[in-house]
Amino acid sequence: MGFWGIEVKPGKPYPYHSDNVPGRLHVTQATLGLGSTAERSIVQCAIGHRSPIFLCSLLPNKNESCSLNLEFEEEELVAFSVIGPRSVHLSGYFEADEGDTIRDDYES
Amino acid sequence: MGFWGIEVKPGKPYPYHSDNVPGRLHVTQATLGLGSTAERSIVQCAIGHRSPIFLCSLLPNKNESCSLNLEFEEEELVAFSVIGPRSVHLSGYFEADEGDTIRDDYES
Amino acid sequence: MGFWGIEVKPGKPYPYHSDNVPGRLHVTQATLGLGSTAERSIVQCAIGHRSPIFLCSLLPNKNESCSLNLEFEEEELVAFSVIGPRSVHLSGYFEADEGDTIRDDYES
Amino acid sequence: MGFWGIEVKPGKPYPYHSDNVPGRLHVTQATLGLGSTAERSIVQCAIGHRSPIFLCSLLPNKNESCSLNLEFEEEELVAFSVIGPRSVHLSGYFEADEGDTIRDDYES
Amino acid sequence: MGFWGIEVKPGKPYPYHSDNVPGRLHVTQATLGLGSTAERSIVQCAIGHRSPIFLCSLLPNKNESCSLNLEFEEEELVAFSVIGPRSVHLSGYFEADEGDTIRDDYES
Repeated sequence: MGFWGIEVKPGKPYPYHSDNVPGRLHVTQATLGLGSTAERSIVQCAIGHRSPIFLCSLLPNKNESCSLNLEFEEEELVAFSVIGPRSVHLSGYFEADEGDTIRDDYES
Repeated sequence: MGFWGIEVKPGKPYPYHSDNVPGRLHVTQATLGLGSTAERSIVQCAIGHRSPIFLCSLLPNKNESCSLNLEFEEEELVAFSVIGPRSVHLSGYFEADEGDTIRDDYES
Repeated sequence: MGFWGIEVKPGKPYPYHSDNVPGRLHVTQATLGLGSTAERSIVQCAIGHRSPIFLCSLLPNKNESCSLNLEFEEEELVAFSVIGPRSVHLSGYFEADEGDTIRDDYES
Repeated sequence: MGFWGIEVKPGKPYPYHSDNVPGRLHVTQATLGLGSTAERSIVQCAIGHRSPIFLCSLLPNKNESCSLNLEFEEEELVAFSVIGPRSVHLSGYFEADEGDTIRDDYES
Repeated sequence: MGFWGIEVKPGKPYPYHSDNVPGRLHVTQATLGLGSTAERSIVQCAIGHRSPIFLCSLLPNKNESCSLNLEFEEEELVAFSVIGPRSVHLSGYFEADEGDTIRDDYES
């Protein structure tokens, strides 16, 4: 298990893949990146070719952080993206399957 | 297990059914859809023919996201709906029962 | 397991009882009901004859929803009530004890 | 298991002790008490003689409730206190250890 | 298991190490420290030499507390730091591995 975090930039969808480590990704927080625009940034998630779903909407100077509670497993093709002018940091943790003895493998 | 998300539009109740996959749906987030009206959108949930219960109230430009923590199992007839002018995106994840070997079935 | 929701109206304490189904009630969300007053509504919980404890405070047009994380078991005599002019919807889910085979009983 | 709640008043630290019941206290919510001052109230927690740590900051008419997720076990000497003019209600639930048969003891 | 809390001061990254106690740290809350500046304080987390990821953004007089849900295990080299003028208190709890009999060791 370990900390997980990415910065999702506007216009650059961020694909998630687990590098073949059996386990579960917990995405638990979204926080607005630095910048001076006052417009909202919306985080969305798309699975395969389905329509993206909004996960949260962050408002500068009002609500710049948002708790999430999402879990993903390795079979899924997930892409996170942002609608709006500022990047969004997503954080959480990865939990390897119990009894999984190849954990060191993904640290390298 | 996998990501789950829907967009619930005003005036169109969204029924949830699990397609006979034994498991548990976790609904963990609600986010306001795009639009320019300033009026609130309320998400509600009805089980069978009982009165709907409000799950959250989203306020444009103030609180556009809301954490939830609801779990549903397959026997229930659930309908999500919105009171207000804008759609609401609900997200979460589906957790298939342990030892369940027919998981591929629901992906098709 | 199933969805659980109630509307607690001002001046009408709402007792919770589990109808003798062994299990655990998870109360996870509070949302302000409809109305036009701007005054706060506070949800409180009393166990037996002890003093009630505030669970959350909802502010119209500012914070109309609140996440909770409470669990109750069947032995307790619980009463939810509201201080303020508007009703509050509480939602969550009931989790029957594992191995409990009398689940149909509480649906009737 | 059962509901747990206390009111922490300004200037009166509230010690927590579990009355020798083996188990775990979950503190999950803080809500501002009644009053008319507009100043913030901060809840803090001290273990033994260490420096207190702020748990949340409640702002009248803005954010009067706050979700928490803390767990305590019986060995710890915990004291909750408030900085500010108004009391704060803390709530959550106590989960007795599984297989613990002396539960009735702490109800008396 | 026990309460965990630190105060992260501006300009002083706070490294986390578990003192060789096998277990899991749950970081569940961030609260703004005392001060009079109105500027935001952002909490970030860095693992080893990777780029730090924002965990939350706290706004004086608007949102001074934030729920988190992060878990860390002992192998990781974690450093928390703050961008902004005011310190931030992080809190949560440490859960020792089950069957671990050297618990007293880390209390001393």
